[in-house]
Amino acid sequence: MFVENQWIKIKAPATVANMVCGFDILGFAVNNPYDEMEMRWMTRANNEPSIVIINIDDYQLPTDPEKNVAGAALLALLEEYEEKAGVPKIKFEVKINKLIKPGSGVGSSAASSAGAVVGANYLLGTIFSKDDLVRFAMNGEKVASGVKHADNIAPCIFGGVTLVRSIFPLEVVALPSPQLHVTIVHPQIEVRTSDARSILKQQVLLKDAIKQWGNIAGLVAGLMKSDYDLIGRSLEDVIIEPVRSILIPGFDDLKKACKQAGALGGGISGSGPSIFMLSKTKEIALAVEKEMNQLYDGIGLPHHTYVTTINQAGVEVEA
Amino acid sequence: MFVENQWIKIKAPATVANMVCGFDILGFAVNNPYDEMEMRWMTRANNEPSIVIINIDDYQLPTDPEKNVAGAALLALLEEYEEKAGVPKIKFEVKINKLIKPGSGVGSSAASSAGAVVGANYLLGTIFSKDDLVRFAMNGEKVASGVKHADNIAPCIFGGVTLVRSIFPLEVVALPSPQLHVTIVHPQIEVRTSDARSILKQQVLLKDAIKQWGNIAGLVAGLMKSDYDLIGRSLEDVIIEPVRSILIPGFDDLKKACKQAGALGGGISGSGPSIFMLSKTKEIALAVEKEMNQLYDGIGLPHHTYVTTINQAGVEVEA
Repeated sequence: MFVENQWIKIKAPATVANMVCGFDILGFAVNNPYDEMEMRWMTRANNEPSIVIINIDDYQLPTDPEKNVAGAALLALLEEYEEKAGVPKIKFEVKINKLIKPGSGVGSSAASSAGAVVGANYLLGTIFSKDDLVRFAMNGEKVASGVKHADNIAPCIFGGVTLVRSIFPLEVVALPSPQLHVTIVHPQIEVRTSDARSILKQQVLLKDAIKQWGNIAGLVAGLMKSDYDLIGRSLEDVIIEPVRSILIPGFDDLKKACKQAGALGGGISGSGPSIFMLSKTKEIALAVEKEMNQLYDGIGLPHHTYVTTINQAGVEVEA
Repeated sequence: MFVENQWIKIKAPATVANMVCGFDILGFAVNNPYDEMEMRWMTRANNEPSIVIINIDDYQLPTDPEKNVAGAALLALLEEYEEKAGVPKIKFEVKINKLIKPGSGVGSSAASSAGAVVGANYLLGTIFSKDDLVRFAMNGEKVASGVKHADNIAPCIFGGVTLVRSIFPLEVVALPSPQLHVTIVHPQIEVRTSDARSILKQQVLLKDAIKQWGNIAGLVAGLMKSDYDLIGRSLEDVIIEPVRSILIPGFDDLKKACKQAGALGGGISGSGPSIFMLSKTKEIALAVEKEMNQLYDGIGLPHHTYVTTINQAGVEVEA
């Protein structure tokens, strides 16, 4: 175990879930933005709480561990830890400085829960596997959105591009990918994950599903072959995007402009409202950013952009 | 161009479409069984037919080029050829010895049409790409089943495992795969492709579609990583198999027995009635064959088995 009472620093990256055609199964981590956290452990007396959350930022997120995404993830981890190891009884203190705006659609809640469990595992001497950590962190997602999903958690913990082949039982597959530049725009509107989910149809046409799984297979093959054109052609979503994009102002025009500027493709990040685009070079990614700014400036919608790359490391700990 | 009037020999492999979870998009070629064909070209006089089909086998398939799958494929090829090159006017003679039983569900019609267009392309001096050849051969599938599909044609022409990412416009992606042993059982019952298609539901649950595309992504990743366990776990079909397997006697028991004998997994080949299983070694593939024989002998159903491997070459021409 790591030294008692001594703080470690944690960097937890933002993540893009779904990756256009891979609804609920694909995701990737980016190098910017990211959350900063600090954590330490100490021996817990019987009457003490096992988790103390300290918010450094101004988002006024709940500090009650059961209502806080990092707290809920740590509670799940501690429960299994105490069954496994038991002694000494552990208490975690966690300082969270959210630089990823909650509700932006780039895995803000996942960063907190993933960062917390990776940090805790480091403090405890790395006794849990990455799969275990994803499992624990999914409890944070349940607090945030009511659903235990792993499409942000998995890339946040593993880094790179990940496939959640199965959720019960959990199986995460790391997918090799070539260097990809990512442009993200966060229009300052609110899209609730629960709303974005409730407008989806429960049934889809078999012929659309076949198109979708052709694209998913193409995207996985394109990533693993470093075939940029195949990646670009496969970044098409005939099921979710046509429904969800109506929640995001200017979506179709923005996507068209970004592709004309040279982007391989892109779409809604998670359930939105952020939109991401993938490009082969930094120059194209910057040209894509310009298009995004122009379009949202044009309709007077406040927004924020990031030009970054795929993060291959996942959550990082500095002792 | 190849020497006029001189016969070439063609070997066109059987193929397994769908590959469990990849309905309408995945397929692979096997080394056994295969069709044997011979072909030659000659200059065509104006009053002559452009294609002459000679059946060597006893299946009494139509010899009218428009009703014969090889003929229909060649007509499509010749039309484009004559636009492209034009002179001299070409006539093809094709002898077909079908060793792949029509209706067995392992790409019998695809072997004839793919074999014919690959042979023709060889005779004409390889002027068409493999993608072109797939496009021509799909006209044969239309004659056979009423639908232009490429999930047998693509692996027959490309060899190995193929992904048909998109059918219009056609895009075939060759997927690298590790050595895989294949056991096939062909129970001697008739399942019409059109029946197998008509019992499918036009709509599927989104949650089932998500499971399916998780498995497809897992299968593609497993093949490209040579991860046999991942391949095995991904060989699951929650959409098509539960409906179609009722057409095949003993399907569930057979699948269970084969997996207990060590098969990675498997399912219905194309629209059936053949069933295929993938195994890591020849020993396991033989043990799987034993289970298949035992089960169908037990219920008195005549059947035929093959123990083979994935064919990486596709249609082969011998001059």
